[in-house]
Amino acid sequence: MRATVINGPQDIRIEEVPDPVVQQPTDAVVRVVNACICGSDLWAYRGVADRAPGQRIGHEFIGFVEAVGAQVAGVRTGDFVVAPFVWSDGTCEYCREGLQTSCPRGGFWGGVGPDGAQSDGGQGEAVRVPFADGTLVKLPEETATDQALLPSLLALSDVMATGHHAALAARVRPGATVAVVGDGAVGLCGVLAARRLGAGRIIALGRHQDRTAIAREFGATDVVAERGEAAVEAVRELTGGQGAHAVLEAVGTEESMRTAISIARDGGAVGYVGVPHGGSAGVEIGQMFGRNVSLGGGVAPARAYIPELLADVLNGSITPGLVFDRTVSLAEVPEGYRAMDDRSALKVRIAL
Amino acid sequence: MRATVINGPQDIRIEEVPDPVVQQPTDAVVRVVNACICGSDLWAYRGVADRAPGQRIGHEFIGFVEAVGAQVAGVRTGDFVVAPFVWSDGTCEYCREGLQTSCPRGGFWGGVGPDGAQSDGGQGEAVRVPFADGTLVKLPEETATDQALLPSLLALSDVMATGHHAALAARVRPGATVAVVGDGAVGLCGVLAARRLGAGRIIALGRHQDRTAIAREFGATDVVAERGEAAVEAVRELTGGQGAHAVLEAVGTEESMRTAISIARDGGAVGYVGVPHGGSAGVEIGQMFGRNVSLGGGVAPARAYIPELLADVLNGSITPGLVFDRTVSLAEVPEGYRAMDDRSALKVRIAL
Repeated sequence: MRATVINGPQDIRIEEVPDPVVQQPTDAVVRVVNACICGSDLWAYRGVADRAPGQRIGHEFIGFVEAVGAQVAGVRTGDFVVAPFVWSDGTCEYCREGLQTSCPRGGFWGGVGPDGAQSDGGQGEAVRVPFADGTLVKLPEETATDQALLPSLLALSDVMATGHHAALAARVRPGATVAVVGDGAVGLCGVLAARRLGAGRIIALGRHQDRTAIAREFGATDVVAERGEAAVEAVRELTGGQGAHAVLEAVGTEESMRTAISIARDGGAVGYVGVPHGGSAGVEIGQMFGRNVSLGGGVAPARAYIPELLADVLNGSITPGLVFDRTVSLAEVPEGYRAMDDRSALKVRIAL
Repeated sequence: MRATVINGPQDIRIEEVPDPVVQQPTDAVVRVVNACICGSDLWAYRGVADRAPGQRIGHEFIGFVEAVGAQVAGVRTGDFVVAPFVWSDGTCEYCREGLQTSCPRGGFWGGVGPDGAQSDGGQGEAVRVPFADGTLVKLPEETATDQALLPSLLALSDVMATGHHAALAARVRPGATVAVVGDGAVGLCGVLAARRLGAGRIIALGRHQDRTAIAREFGATDVVAERGEAAVEAVRELTGGQGAHAVLEAVGTEESMRTAISIARDGGAVGYVGVPHGGSAGVEIGQMFGRNVSLGGGVAPARAYIPELLADVLNGSITPGLVFDRTVSLAEVPEGYRAMDDRSALKVRIAL
């Protein structure tokens, strides 16, 4: 079969790789219908995050179960499913608590699993799924042919779940004033998640008009185009000098973290889900201490959130698929990376 | 009257200063019965925190109201009271929410208030208290003569309230495994606060046997004497490799913050109340992200907590006053600083 591999910075290729097969009785093989490119894939594309030459890439996909191991009971061949961006066994203490990202037998698609083996990436024709029962979430059969719905189902793999995680970590409450740092797909889904949780006011920080237009569609009441100190001043002016009760940080740089902490109201919380590439330098601990601003978040346990978010996708109350503004074929994936890297695309969907 | 002033590093003096008087109709003057020296005073004593030569010092005291302004309604002359380490107006949005440390008209004893004026310190014969109604908490009249109770009432000013804040920020829940970094008075009160909130297991990190003995009396079930990496390993061994659900950080150095984050269980929280003198270098953001460890806390709104903690002091369920292991007169305060600085005293009470 064909799959996306990364050979080095800016070197994304579609190559012939071995067909995945059931190796463990808890495995499934999923034939991919839709995958996508994530902002976090760009860290590898830009050479900021290390990848071994030839490593598989992509961690978001929906598709049909093609084969299952003998012990798989939750899904069967032919089922339409969504995979969270981390697989997990579904039985350990962390999985039972809803923190599947800490499952000791779990791993990231395209990465090296705890067994030392290289796993399949999501940007390919098929994926071997370890612990299928713990990992996959079944989708209603009829949704597989609903072309308008597929993008929103795909968004559950990562960006919508991650935006929701940021909103929970930032302790968004009904009526709260929320600020979202970052107008990428996760930031936009954070806006949507905040609205879903009942935020009274949502200030989106972003400079790209096409993106902030989506933010407004998702529920943003205000948009701040400034960055750095000017952004902090703008948010404070919008909030009577106080800042936002809840701040979602969806970028992961030193500056974005500093901005997020600086625009939080005293006693408020920052929920961060941008993979932190700025180290802790932007973590303004003196401000946090004096103003009792807390910092929570991290890698989102998407598996825990998919059922409730799926319900809202199906009933039409959220449409996270609007973050996809381009669709490519598998052969066009390298072009998709280029488009996301130069920001001519917000988020690229891969239709197989 | 006489009061403690700091003229420079290691230069603590008892000097004659003007008697405090009611300046604003919301002021009270409190004649101090007991004050004490705080671990945070040592940052100034050691020259790490700047103080102007001749600045007043001390921020914990109990005493009798000696005079009140015309608008003071909550306390009257002769009342026995405790002051939290920050004064606050009691009427602003933050005060009403219980975050009195963010009151825009509030300030720290011994510091410069928002009006630009130098305030009185707690380590003196009397203190002018701004916003007496918002700041002071009345104590039962009969407690003033209960010598065994005075230390625990005094501890409400700061250390017990701060330990409680750490425990809340670390999200201590009934049955939780809790770890406390630091065996100073705040760390010990953190142990007590964790027990009070129903922690199932409390691991105290500390090397001083006389202090860890108090930790055990306050409810610690385990003591770890190691530091740094060895401490992390010891806590992980005690917790089946997972770490503690809730970690209280009560030191404020780079190493203590790193240790606190490293011993937190995935999905757990660190509540930090040690004034952060290590900057953000010890904030292990990569660990926090991957393991969903959150970080909260800061300067404790003691005023919000005193009523409920006082109730437990009065009914005998907590005895935070055990952290005081030496009592000095006002004239002996310089010796008290030396004793705390060289760790021959845990916490020094000043009996006036």
